[in-house]
Amino acid sequence: MSLETVSTNKSFGGRQGVYKHASTATGTDMTFSVYVPPHEDGAKLPLLWYLSGLTCTHANVTEKGEFRQACAEHGVIFVAPDTSPRGDDVPDEDAYDFGKGAGFYVDATEEPWRANYRMRSYIEDELPALIAAELPMADMGRQAITGHSMGGHGALTIALRNAGRFRSVSAFAPIAAPLQCPWGEKALTGYLGADRKEWRQYDACALIDDGATVPEILVDQGLADNFLTEQLKPELLEQACERAQIDLTLRRQPGYDHSYYFISTFLGEHIAWHAERLKG
Amino acid sequence: MSLETVSTNKSFGGRQGVYKHASTATGTDMTFSVYVPPHEDGAKLPLLWYLSGLTCTHANVTEKGEFRQACAEHGVIFVAPDTSPRGDDVPDEDAYDFGKGAGFYVDATEEPWRANYRMRSYIEDELPALIAAELPMADMGRQAITGHSMGGHGALTIALRNAGRFRSVSAFAPIAAPLQCPWGEKALTGYLGADRKEWRQYDACALIDDGATVPEILVDQGLADNFLTEQLKPELLEQACERAQIDLTLRRQPGYDHSYYFISTFLGEHIAWHAERLKG
Repeated sequence: MSLETVSTNKSFGGRQGVYKHASTATGTDMTFSVYVPPHEDGAKLPLLWYLSGLTCTHANVTEKGEFRQACAEHGVIFVAPDTSPRGDDVPDEDAYDFGKGAGFYVDATEEPWRANYRMRSYIEDELPALIAAELPMADMGRQAITGHSMGGHGALTIALRNAGRFRSVSAFAPIAAPLQCPWGEKALTGYLGADRKEWRQYDACALIDDGATVPEILVDQGLADNFLTEQLKPELLEQACERAQIDLTLRRQPGYDHSYYFISTFLGEHIAWHAERLKG
Repeated sequence: MSLETVSTNKSFGGRQGVYKHASTATGTDMTFSVYVPPHEDGAKLPLLWYLSGLTCTHANVTEKGEFRQACAEHGVIFVAPDTSPRGDDVPDEDAYDFGKGAGFYVDATEEPWRANYRMRSYIEDELPALIAAELPMADMGRQAITGHSMGGHGALTIALRNAGRFRSVSAFAPIAAPLQCPWGEKALTGYLGADRKEWRQYDACALIDDGATVPEILVDQGLADNFLTEQLKPELLEQACERAQIDLTLRRQPGYDHSYYFISTFLGEHIAWHAERLKG
């Protein structure tokens, strides 16, 4: 595997990089960003994955997330992948919530999506292997994961399906139950077909009900979020965690919306929370 | 004067707003952003102006500046204006360093620029009056000013020309001496004509040599900044301040470039520095 450097900029004493590579999972070029905090030569650093929401690339959180100060303070690498395959040859739909920018972190099984829309394999397998090979300071034994909206769904489902891989998982305004909201129904029908049993591996609540578990979850949810009641439904995650006795901290934040003005307010606290669990 | 609210978002406990108004100074609509930190009812808060660089609008620093956490902590209002008049009827040039996005904080005297390119009057007179009228919590007796690149030039020259108005002034990678660099020569020739005596009111070093003064100046300058030697020339400001015995703190920052990855790293420290001087 080879990695092309798109850009690097010094920031908060560390280095914000953007990289491109030919992905075997998606059959396309893929771009992602990595922030490496200041560190001693030879040090091994824990790593936090951040999965982005609908319409986003790596760039949104990289520019607007305000995570570098906390990552520098706590010595945490921050990795932000794209949300779908990209390129003129990649099938798309004229919609913000399906196709490019809306990969939903699934491996599609339906035509014409199945060839390229393999974001589950990309995020779970290919990109971690690439990071491990290319970033010698990354301690792949100490990983955590978070994400926003569709990316919060991604973070929760990936952590639940890969027990033991992540020391901690959190989310911002996640799509808590794709089986029970319009965004999820559309995406999962399109990528996976009509058999709802196939969808359950991509629904945090269904995974929990089917026995998947993590020790604890931190979620921040703005109460002025336009998508709260129709799409996000944190109460369903709350109920699933209660049934499974998973320690969920769901912080309902008055006045906050779905934007990066919300995420950036609390991302530093999430990084500190993950860093505590990534120690040693 | 009336103000149209473009957007407001809760962030770090306060409110990030974007507003539009019909400007008499520029004869166009103008957009700017204001962050008001969390505060008690009836409190009066100091205010920091941030002037942006070439090609920017209010949006660059608003999205990428990472200033809200420090403004919330220190109780400082943050105002970010645009860098030029805007609109289809406004004369422009096909250049990133002249015309729209490149107002250089001057009142143009040359045709066809003089009707709209009146950013000095807009920033010095019209917008402060509007802020004072529309933001009841703004304490206009406690103002500070900063800016980046062209906006660092703006901050320095506006503070120097308006002795006593600002408690403190700082800059990021300012164009320290427009009379002595290609950006400045092009802009001042275009907006003001060939008489270089007219330019001196828009050059921090010339203003200082002509007797204008401020108690102290804080400047951060990245040493990996591509524009350092040809355009920015902080050594000329250093020499002018030494001649005039102005207390300049010029921090040369190894490895940092001209981008918001640099600005965001140090903007919190500038806000703390200004807040100290804005107390009481």
